[in-house]
Amino acid sequence: MILIGERINGMFKDIREAILNKDPEPVRYWAKRQYENCASYLDVNTGPTVEAKDQPAVMEWLVKIAQEAAPLPCCIDSTNPEAIEAGLAAHKGKAMINSTSADQWKMDIYMPMAAKYSAALIGLAMNEKGVPKSAADRAALAMEIVVNADANGIPMEDLYIDPLVLPCNVAQEHGPEALEALRQIKMLADPSPRTTMGLSNISQRCNNRHLLNRTFLIMSMACGLDSAIADVEDQELLDAVAAANIMLNKDIYCDSFLKTFRQR
Amino acid sequence: MILIGERINGMFKDIREAILNKDPEPVRYWAKRQYENCASYLDVNTGPTVEAKDQPAVMEWLVKIAQEAAPLPCCIDSTNPEAIEAGLAAHKGKAMINSTSADQWKMDIYMPMAAKYSAALIGLAMNEKGVPKSAADRAALAMEIVVNADANGIPMEDLYIDPLVLPCNVAQEHGPEALEALRQIKMLADPSPRTTMGLSNISQRCNNRHLLNRTFLIMSMACGLDSAIADVEDQELLDAVAAANIMLNKDIYCDSFLKTFRQR
Repeated sequence: MILIGERINGMFKDIREAILNKDPEPVRYWAKRQYENCASYLDVNTGPTVEAKDQPAVMEWLVKIAQEAAPLPCCIDSTNPEAIEAGLAAHKGKAMINSTSADQWKMDIYMPMAAKYSAALIGLAMNEKGVPKSAADRAALAMEIVVNADANGIPMEDLYIDPLVLPCNVAQEHGPEALEALRQIKMLADPSPRTTMGLSNISQRCNNRHLLNRTFLIMSMACGLDSAIADVEDQELLDAVAAANIMLNKDIYCDSFLKTFRQR
Repeated sequence: MILIGERINGMFKDIREAILNKDPEPVRYWAKRQYENCASYLDVNTGPTVEAKDQPAVMEWLVKIAQEAAPLPCCIDSTNPEAIEAGLAAHKGKAMINSTSADQWKMDIYMPMAAKYSAALIGLAMNEKGVPKSAADRAALAMEIVVNADANGIPMEDLYIDPLVLPCNVAQEHGPEALEALRQIKMLADPSPRTTMGLSNISQRCNNRHLLNRTFLIMSMACGLDSAIADVEDQELLDAVAAANIMLNKDIYCDSFLKTFRQR
């Protein structure tokens, strides 16, 4: 399970203020802290309050600060292609782009960009019509992303398809469809594309968010989830992932498997 | 999720002593307590210390005491066909038989018995050669059970196939095979047979047993598990099941979904 730490995002107050004040400390803090909590990537997002014209410079700053603080690649997260490219240009090592949809015009921007920078790419199983309800329709959009990635020379191991999860208090019927979509996406190509999801979205404005998040995460792992953008501060989530790795025979059981998972 | 409370079993010291002393109190206690903790069935097993000749009478006694104490059906659990039949004869309402294997001679005993008493029946995906390793071999044995059940007039809704889980510290490679077997078993017939498992076996002699149990349970739910014989005392397990029911769109989300699950 490749965990992508969600915390360096301008939608959080401390990061928003760090951006506004050009204060690197909160970014450094969350980069280090998520690294210690098993993150394999740091999601980096300027957030909604930064104006479009300023987003490339802020993204470049965030990526540099984050990578100075922790030896991790970034998942460069923006709806602004110029901000994504500024992040990629500033990034050391293999970055991840978050994200394209299945809209052709977006794939035509982000896929050549991923190929140019040898970056991994998240592809959302949605288009301008929104998020489809059925697993089959999600898989059909995923297939368009797979075909376009292949045409752009992006290897399947660098493509992360997100079946998209919606809050269970308003779109509960999407839950089992997203799980089934994961199964189908893993069968779209051989080798399979990888899969990911923005986990915390499943429990927006719900009670018992941590329980709902970790429950859906490990159900998703049983259906082929390879990665998630998640709150790696959540120690019970990390324990659940460690246990699921044992159950899926991906990590070898030992009596100290929880500690071993964190030390790796 | 149909939870079968595992606690009235002579392998536990208090139940063994209750049997030896003909003391109904521990049996009553666990019948009530598991009823309050969301059990839909009470597994009832004389345990290994009762001699074969005494098992029918002890099973009859256990079933009567349990059903006097709680308004639940029993899952009559023995390797002794005479004990099973004594339990069925004493049982009020629709019982469950635990269990037959895919061995023809066992199916020829237990399937007519299930039909005679209109009881549900657990069928283990194993035979005299043991538990197969691969999902496909488990599903092949499950199919033999499905065919035999059909020939005996047992409806699929009364048949519970157990893919069999083994302790993850000694047979870890069985975990993903059991999950895949669940998926395949649900596709063996239309309507599908039901599925169950003896959950606690996955973590025998392991550390963090509760975590391993509930993690494997909800991964299994994502793969088609309908029922489990489990420790319903485990409140975190009940919370995980309540959350998984939301994620699978089987229960409707409400802010008090944990409380609602327990009250049902």
